[in-house]
Amino acid sequence: MADDVVVALDVGGTGIKCALVDAAGQVRHSERRATGRERGSEAVVTTILEITEGLVRTAERTGLRPEGIGIVVPGVVDEAAGVATWSANVGFRDVPLRQLVTERIGLPTALGHDVRVGGLAEARLGAGRGYRHVLFVAIGTGIAAAHVVDGTAFAGAHGAAGELGHVVIRPGGPACGCGLRGCLEAIASAAAVSRRYAERSPAGTPTGADRVAALAAAGDPTAAGVWGEAIDALADGLLTGLTLFDPEAVVVGGGLAEAGDALLNPLGAALRERLRFQREPALMRAALGDEAGCLGAGLIARDALNGVPA
Amino acid sequence: MADDVVVALDVGGTGIKCALVDAAGQVRHSERRATGRERGSEAVVTTILEITEGLVRTAERTGLRPEGIGIVVPGVVDEAAGVATWSANVGFRDVPLRQLVTERIGLPTALGHDVRVGGLAEARLGAGRGYRHVLFVAIGTGIAAAHVVDGTAFAGAHGAAGELGHVVIRPGGPACGCGLRGCLEAIASAAAVSRRYAERSPAGTPTGADRVAALAAAGDPTAAGVWGEAIDALADGLLTGLTLFDPEAVVVGGGLAEAGDALLNPLGAALRERLRFQREPALMRAALGDEAGCLGAGLIARDALNGVPA
Repeated sequence: MADDVVVALDVGGTGIKCALVDAAGQVRHSERRATGRERGSEAVVTTILEITEGLVRTAERTGLRPEGIGIVVPGVVDEAAGVATWSANVGFRDVPLRQLVTERIGLPTALGHDVRVGGLAEARLGAGRGYRHVLFVAIGTGIAAAHVVDGTAFAGAHGAAGELGHVVIRPGGPACGCGLRGCLEAIASAAAVSRRYAERSPAGTPTGADRVAALAAAGDPTAAGVWGEAIDALADGLLTGLTLFDPEAVVVGGGLAEAGDALLNPLGAALRERLRFQREPALMRAALGDEAGCLGAGLIARDALNGVPA
Repeated sequence: MADDVVVALDVGGTGIKCALVDAAGQVRHSERRATGRERGSEAVVTTILEITEGLVRTAERTGLRPEGIGIVVPGVVDEAAGVATWSANVGFRDVPLRQLVTERIGLPTALGHDVRVGGLAEARLGAGRGYRHVLFVAIGTGIAAAHVVDGTAFAGAHGAAGELGHVVIRPGGPACGCGLRGCLEAIASAAAVSRRYAERSPAGTPTGADRVAALAAAGDPTAAGVWGEAIDALADGLLTGLTLFDPEAVVVGGGLAEAGDALLNPLGAALRERLRFQREPALMRAALGDEAGCLGAGLIARDALNGVPA
């Protein structure tokens, strides 16, 4: 029905993006709330439950019929069990979020992983539309990927598939937060680009990755060095992704993708140089921006209502 | 029916393994034939057609009812289109093998990729039985992997997924046949182990990888060096596989797996050392040996009859 909606929440480290999405995929209402993770994981869970309840009431008050709920969180997520296994960003460890929401609200609920549902949204509604095999790569504070085939994202056996940021591309290279050295994310995430520029510039002042890209384009040799190393690292990481997944299209999202052509043009060239038997994929910037997670939360809620397994 | 069989062919660079497999998965007849690839790809295609026809007649003569055909080849295979896209081993380039066999024999035919159907067979019938997410890694002349989830192997958009042997794990390392440097396969395939030992030993005599493993175990320092580097490289390559696929079980097959515990024990230890957030998978030797491809050919033939898409 035209006024049937699902409640969609994308829970991040700082904010929670919320929406009511109808069956045609239209966002009928949206809002943003603070995560307040400094209050601890129990308080965050309580906030999620309250926001969800509030959105259900908002829907009802405006003549919409809430049918189901989709919630996405970062980290390691066991979609099938509905458990947020581990997320440093929001302090979750083995939180049975799907069950908690279902018990409190009484509506069918789906739990998803932020990057996987973002990939789902990009593949079905965004830049990857029309492609059957899409590799979505989110480059922000960290780097993670979602492999989406025919509109389904692969979660892996323990909800930990697609951790492209932790593929070692520079053995013995810079230390990564995961404990290994030379992970892609330690060189090419937005955070790494920013940190590596600060380490090498005399001022040592924090500079965002977007600014490093701009400085590199303007001829700053330190910025050009850091940015060039990030591009090379991303090309090496993507090559590994192509070699194992063989996608038709690679969709690049996350904060670093906001650099646009300054990222995609040199990245495409560096990737082409490396290809041997691998087929060159369409390389595109994500189309949904930071709405992808929330739209994806809507998709998994709708999928669950339609009996599509997580 | 008990006497319904499928015709299964596993076409390799030197030999073709053939079988008649009934619906219960029992091999009712098997034989091996020469590929004769030195005669060129057209002659190999003719041989495949003749062998298939002969197997159909053998089935009929012995009171079996041939229902369908499964043929697997190495290289890049587009299962959905039924085309052997590229295979250096047998000289194929864009051979529409499924259509050729269907036209000649008149039975429904499925075309598959040797490693993917081997993975399928190991996951459904062999060492991976009981696991939903299996990464099958074949280590022979080359190295390739098949990612099998719920009994389905992922082919990728162009039939080229799972090329684990061409993941670069030693940037700037030894040259690989694909044109890159430092690919896993250039260090850890059976052929690479044998070649690297010959390069470093004064005699320079060709020595099989199994013999290198035995010499390493006996304390030969050159052999121990080559074997240890192969183990480390395999652990690095598998770590990348775990990071991207998150499987429950890793099944190691191919010629090198015949080293048994001399391979799996140090490989398991080296892999455990490298794990950070990744879950440790069950690490097992393949159970079906060189029958995996032929049994897998039987499986895809049966799947096609049952309407399971390639």
